[in-house]
Amino acid sequence: MQKISIAIHGGAGTIVNEEMTAELENEYRQGLQQALDKGYSILQNGGSAIEAVKAAVINLEDNILFNAGKGSVFTNDGLNEMDASIMDGKTLNAGAVAGVQHIRNPIQLAEEIMINSGHVFLSGEGANAFAKTRGIKTEPDEYFYSEFRYNQLSAIKDTVDYQLDHKGDSLSTQKKFGTVGAIACDENGNIAAATSTGGMTNKRYGRIGDTPMIGAGTYANNKTCAVSCTGHGEVFIKAVAAYDVSCLMEYKNMSLKEACEEVVMKKLVAMQGEGGLIGMDACGNAVLIFNSAGMYRGQKNSDGINDVAIYRS
Amino acid sequence: MQKISIAIHGGAGTIVNEEMTAELENEYRQGLQQALDKGYSILQNGGSAIEAVKAAVINLEDNILFNAGKGSVFTNDGLNEMDASIMDGKTLNAGAVAGVQHIRNPIQLAEEIMINSGHVFLSGEGANAFAKTRGIKTEPDEYFYSEFRYNQLSAIKDTVDYQLDHKGDSLSTQKKFGTVGAIACDENGNIAAATSTGGMTNKRYGRIGDTPMIGAGTYANNKTCAVSCTGHGEVFIKAVAAYDVSCLMEYKNMSLKEACEEVVMKKLVAMQGEGGLIGMDACGNAVLIFNSAGMYRGQKNSDGINDVAIYRS
Repeated sequence: MQKISIAIHGGAGTIVNEEMTAELENEYRQGLQQALDKGYSILQNGGSAIEAVKAAVINLEDNILFNAGKGSVFTNDGLNEMDASIMDGKTLNAGAVAGVQHIRNPIQLAEEIMINSGHVFLSGEGANAFAKTRGIKTEPDEYFYSEFRYNQLSAIKDTVDYQLDHKGDSLSTQKKFGTVGAIACDENGNIAAATSTGGMTNKRYGRIGDTPMIGAGTYANNKTCAVSCTGHGEVFIKAVAAYDVSCLMEYKNMSLKEACEEVVMKKLVAMQGEGGLIGMDACGNAVLIFNSAGMYRGQKNSDGINDVAIYRS
Repeated sequence: MQKISIAIHGGAGTIVNEEMTAELENEYRQGLQQALDKGYSILQNGGSAIEAVKAAVINLEDNILFNAGKGSVFTNDGLNEMDASIMDGKTLNAGAVAGVQHIRNPIQLAEEIMINSGHVFLSGEGANAFAKTRGIKTEPDEYFYSEFRYNQLSAIKDTVDYQLDHKGDSLSTQKKFGTVGAIACDENGNIAAATSTGGMTNKRYGRIGDTPMIGAGTYANNKTCAVSCTGHGEVFIKAVAAYDVSCLMEYKNMSLKEACEEVVMKKLVAMQGEGGLIGMDACGNAVLIFNSAGMYRGQKNSDGINDVAIYRS
């Protein structure tokens, strides 16, 4: 019988043990476990990989702890601008959205774009207008407001600095990346990937990172793998990181593990691209890998694996 | 001595002979030759591949005949929204911009983003704001207005139809794609790629195509090739077309020609992705290939090649 399997991430970066209270760490772990369970239960009930990754990412978007959806960081203008993308490994259909505001679940909008827009990638006000025509749920500013996030912005506003996520106090010594993502393999051996982010605190100029870029932050193809990335987006774009894992498997016959290691531990490191990714093949095998100090992550499958983790093991 | 070489395209699609007057065809050919000459003269004077592709694309952006810069088509709102990207094969540095208005030369803004923004990809009003801080030249609406383009929009506005470019009268029977692009190899064996577009006539919802997406519409890496694409952007995104050519060369040891044929004539055809691309290796060899009826194109190098063409040869 085909193994069913899901893996998720909640961002990578310099997650330093000393800044994490036991209580907060417990909340992160619970959040990861809930998202895993949500996605896995869909697979258990015969649902598709696309439905499973969407459900897991929606759960993470609804959790204030993670930089996506409700927990999105603030831009320089004090707004929340969110990006997301989703790809179906069976059909290679894909949907992506950049720079939307007030959308409760950007990953749902990405899926709606994939299915009903005739396009792959919509952005900004236009994407918000499309969302309205499809009845996508919006929320007022207050929904996205959190004191924690707002204080992050206040600390660096009017500087040229910016940050990604999961930031402590020492701006100059730390880089942290906030993105959530999920990959899954269903009982039919179809795989899918989804990624969502609230971007960088204090971001300006309509910056687009790797998250909504098919090939960079997200990719899925039943022939090879499903991949969701998190990290220094600019480098992941130049490395075309997600599709590179797929190409190394397809054209160089690497295993999923070899391909993920080549991209994350060699190519991205050489380009100073801090972060990580999760990858899954069509047998449901998962690789969760990062070159940063930590990555919020978890995996669950029908072989009995059910793990969440934050730091290096 | 290292061969210096440049190739350009001005869009691909169903360029039907009967709709083309001899006069118009001559204008297209002259426009292509001017852009080629402009880029080539930079290489001849010892300039870099990046400078050459930028100069060639600026020349095409300034030509009303091509769907980029001055000749950009109109969106559903009657506006011009432009996308562009550029990549340096020596450093893998890249810059990209989506959905900007009033920028005279979007490719210049893409290069400015590459050099001075700390990011790779900026969009919309934010990108326009960045352009302002860098003194990038803007133009009023009138500059981009052309009766020909406006009539294209009027013909299909208030329908759900849209078109890409180079359209004749028979909307339903033709698909034409408007993008301009250039690739070059300089005397130091460095290669670069640049692509720019005015998008689709009647486009809505802030649609982003492959043009500003590094890996999809544009890619350059001295180890393999420089590529600029033109065609049905949604399919080129899902195929990660430009980087796929590079991966086939790097991981499967294909020649530039074999890799371009695999992507354009097999993979894109199987995905119903109409269009083409131009590719160049670090020896200055060029491939200009398309699966559509025609592609505005040209190439010039120090081996004495100097050609422009529109239809299949």
